[in-house]
Amino acid sequence: MRRWNGWGDEATVVELPAHGGAFLAALIGPGQPLPDASLAQVLAQVPASRLAVHPLVSTDAEVRVRHARGQSLPDWLAMREGRFEVFPDGVALPETPAQIRELLAWAAEQDVLVIPYGGGTSVAGHINPQAGAKPVLTLSLERMSRLLELDEQSLIATFGPGASGPQVESQLRARGYTLGHFPQSWELSTLGGWVASRSSGQQSLRYGRIEQLFAGGTLETFAGTLQIPTFPASAAGPDLRELVLGSEGRFGVISSVQVRVTKLAVEEKFYAVFLPSWAKALEAIRTLGQARVPLSMLRLSNAIETETQLALAGHPEQIAWLEKYLALRGARAGKCMLTFGVTGNRGQNALSLKQAKSLLKSFGGVFTGTLLGKKWAEGRFRFPYLREGLWQAGYAVDTLETATDWANVDSLLNKIEASLRGGLSDEGEQVHVFTHLSHVYGEGSSIYTTYVFRPGSDYATTHKRWQKLKHLASSTVVNNRGTISHQHGVGRDHAPYLPVEKGELGIAALQAMANHFDPDQRLNPGVLLK
Amino acid sequence: MRRWNGWGDEATVVELPAHGGAFLAALIGPGQPLPDASLAQVLAQVPASRLAVHPLVSTDAEVRVRHARGQSLPDWLAMREGRFEVFPDGVALPETPAQIRELLAWAAEQDVLVIPYGGGTSVAGHINPQAGAKPVLTLSLERMSRLLELDEQSLIATFGPGASGPQVESQLRARGYTLGHFPQSWELSTLGGWVASRSSGQQSLRYGRIEQLFAGGTLETFAGTLQIPTFPASAAGPDLRELVLGSEGRFGVISSVQVRVTKLAVEEKFYAVFLPSWAKALEAIRTLGQARVPLSMLRLSNAIETETQLALAGHPEQIAWLEKYLALRGARAGKCMLTFGVTGNRGQNALSLKQAKSLLKSFGGVFTGTLLGKKWAEGRFRFPYLREGLWQAGYAVDTLETATDWANVDSLLNKIEASLRGGLSDEGEQVHVFTHLSHVYGEGSSIYTTYVFRPGSDYATTHKRWQKLKHLASSTVVNNRGTISHQHGVGRDHAPYLPVEKGELGIAALQAMANHFDPDQRLNPGVLLK
Repeated sequence: MRRWNGWGDEATVVELPAHGGAFLAALIGPGQPLPDASLAQVLAQVPASRLAVHPLVSTDAEVRVRHARGQSLPDWLAMREGRFEVFPDGVALPETPAQIRELLAWAAEQDVLVIPYGGGTSVAGHINPQAGAKPVLTLSLERMSRLLELDEQSLIATFGPGASGPQVESQLRARGYTLGHFPQSWELSTLGGWVASRSSGQQSLRYGRIEQLFAGGTLETFAGTLQIPTFPASAAGPDLRELVLGSEGRFGVISSVQVRVTKLAVEEKFYAVFLPSWAKALEAIRTLGQARVPLSMLRLSNAIETETQLALAGHPEQIAWLEKYLALRGARAGKCMLTFGVTGNRGQNALSLKQAKSLLKSFGGVFTGTLLGKKWAEGRFRFPYLREGLWQAGYAVDTLETATDWANVDSLLNKIEASLRGGLSDEGEQVHVFTHLSHVYGEGSSIYTTYVFRPGSDYATTHKRWQKLKHLASSTVVNNRGTISHQHGVGRDHAPYLPVEKGELGIAALQAMANHFDPDQRLNPGVLLK
Repeated sequence: MRRWNGWGDEATVVELPAHGGAFLAALIGPGQPLPDASLAQVLAQVPASRLAVHPLVSTDAEVRVRHARGQSLPDWLAMREGRFEVFPDGVALPETPAQIRELLAWAAEQDVLVIPYGGGTSVAGHINPQAGAKPVLTLSLERMSRLLELDEQSLIATFGPGASGPQVESQLRARGYTLGHFPQSWELSTLGGWVASRSSGQQSLRYGRIEQLFAGGTLETFAGTLQIPTFPASAAGPDLRELVLGSEGRFGVISSVQVRVTKLAVEEKFYAVFLPSWAKALEAIRTLGQARVPLSMLRLSNAIETETQLALAGHPEQIAWLEKYLALRGARAGKCMLTFGVTGNRGQNALSLKQAKSLLKSFGGVFTGTLLGKKWAEGRFRFPYLREGLWQAGYAVDTLETATDWANVDSLLNKIEASLRGGLSDEGEQVHVFTHLSHVYGEGSSIYTTYVFRPGSDYATTHKRWQKLKHLASSTVVNNRGTISHQHGVGRDHAPYLPVEKGELGIAALQAMANHFDPDQRLNPGVLLK
């Protein structure tokens, strides 16, 4: 069963290893666990629904609890404390596009607000109902998860929008294909959610971001149905796909998604290389990224993340051996771990490996083979579970991410880390901060920063700490040529920072679009645009 | 000097070889030349300008003639006949973004319509002034053609929007870089025009379309300046770059363009392979395109285009030898020429060549080495000049293009060719029609069809023939799952067909955007949206 107040399946438990706990304690002090509320306590708070009866809508209290919050840190704190504040008045579970249209018509008639809901994995407050006079209907797409059509000539698959990562891949793999879209939230997040929030997967270097994978589909809006046909490319005016991508439920409800798929590759391997310093590593990954070597994944941890990962890995003796081996070859304190993948046919993979190894060697890289790469691949969806382990040990953890041009990557990364690291100094608290680059482009890179801090003496203090850190880092990002999000989207949490990058005129253009598709501002108000 | 009534520089003359003339005459009858008007005749028709005096605006008659028409076939006929019908009232030549803003403010104050103008190479009626009560100002960007900044870490170049293909490449090549964007119009078309019309270059397989190259820039609109910052990627809501791409001067004037550039490659080669039949060739190019072999160009002529190209090549003896060689190896009547390119480092190029050759061989491909590939590369911008040679010989030629998913390529191609081939049968006229696929994607391909027909006894009859053919082919495209344009844009000529693919709601969304940026509908009215 899925956790009602955290990440993933209850059966999966990832604990913080003892060694990792000691590592964190030394850095930011011993953990300070806060007490968790029970589901019963939360259920007792759910008020009566303000919705009329509708055959497609559930007003069951537990269903409403389970659709009230996403996975941002404030969501997490609210769920652990049992202070949900607002619940949707009901959850609709349509099974067809026609039922979505029926529900939208009903919502208009009943003067109800609508929140489209995919996997509920937002970390930016996309799906949280707000307190207000109008009832709120959460429209979950979970019953629309089937592979509806597969065009094996054009490599186009048509899915229901509610298909989760595993549902997408299992249905495609049975036919010999893959979408190749693996965000960290993959186990729970959905195809429609990826499109609505401009998601990026860990192997975007090969498969592209969701922008490149999304070929067409259908958006049900209050102004009518927008059908976007699939073309391999088009010069016929502005691309309407790009209005749906990142629309975050403001323009309509995605009712079908057509994606570009790929035949399963013959071979896939991941490798780890250690670079002797951040300066060398940054230069190496930029050069490799710009050399157009056909890799499928490229990721670089900075020195603190490398150290943290090795400490949290939980095998101190093996790690000690690894450290000895690396030190002998020149990668000592300050070393940075770079992981890369090759996916494809054997001939191309062999050449890509050879070219990547040779290039990395010229920057002092120490190649360690596939062992750590395999570990990365096996643990790629494990991190969100570790949040549970860290929480139980008394630590709060959050991440934030941006992207910027190469000329600005080092400077922005340092500013973000510095803003977080010193962010609680007025309270005498330390924050442990580390970063990796996980999506590499010719022009620049994503920057993905994790920060760990101690909860305060109660939930309110903890929430304030988060607010302080989030605001410091977000302002740093947008005031220093970073985008407010490379892969998580805008939601409510990033909306105040969006005007800096879109400009007043740009925001007004998006608002004009929202007014066009949803004249009564009934869809997800407050998300994306204030 | 640039031709005032046709394509390119007057010094470049490409005549139809005698052999080619005989080939066409056998197919559609002897050429029927129509008389050309002189520049003096046209200058005599230019009416007085309705514009007030402005220091940045020229109202010189010849300048106005030279900015009145693009390069569509109706433009061509109008220019050759000397029946321009409408001239802009003046041509502005700003040198800075501030001067563009000044001109827009002046246009608003004076109640003047504005047509942004790049290289004047539109083949869809993008830049033609229309008759009407309001004066028309053509705003040419030709004096804004400099490379303003080159960020060699991020591989971002900032250009004035009026830089032509040769101006872009010469300024970049001097620094060791290339944009790699080579549409057939490259000699005259401009960076800003490519962005505004969603252009695609012949090596899009390596460098991407202009959508992938355009990183950011500035759009001057009647509602203010839209500044689009460069990010390698972003999940921060809908992408405003995608509103500028394909906006065709309806939303604003592009005043600066930032593009993603690439270091010049060590090696570039083009090869030709002949496939024994269209069925084999189509399967081969799809398989190769979907195999993700890193090629830089991939192009396939159908059997009629292959035959026509060999006939028009002008070296009948050499061609006879080639035909003998191919026939011995199984490529006889019905054979199709496939050209592909590799661009990059020697190791990758060698592997790509090996993989492409081996795959093509399995479809019966006969490899002929680099000779024909070299010929293709040398003649890649030559085709528009041949129009002049054909016209002098008494033939009218036009092209049209679309893109569709692989499952539909063969069917749509056949329908388009059939619609054109029989399009003048009521007049007892033959049309010679041939096609190539020049932009190959995993999902599908572009379809680029050329048609040659004889002018009528006068210009009016000739124009009617074109209208008939254009309408037949355009309806065939949009009613059979093709986009109305893969690379030429919408302009006026394709605007009536756009609603089929965008849908009423989609067109209304784009119109809402035009109203937002240009509330008085002063910018290029009638283009893109009716």
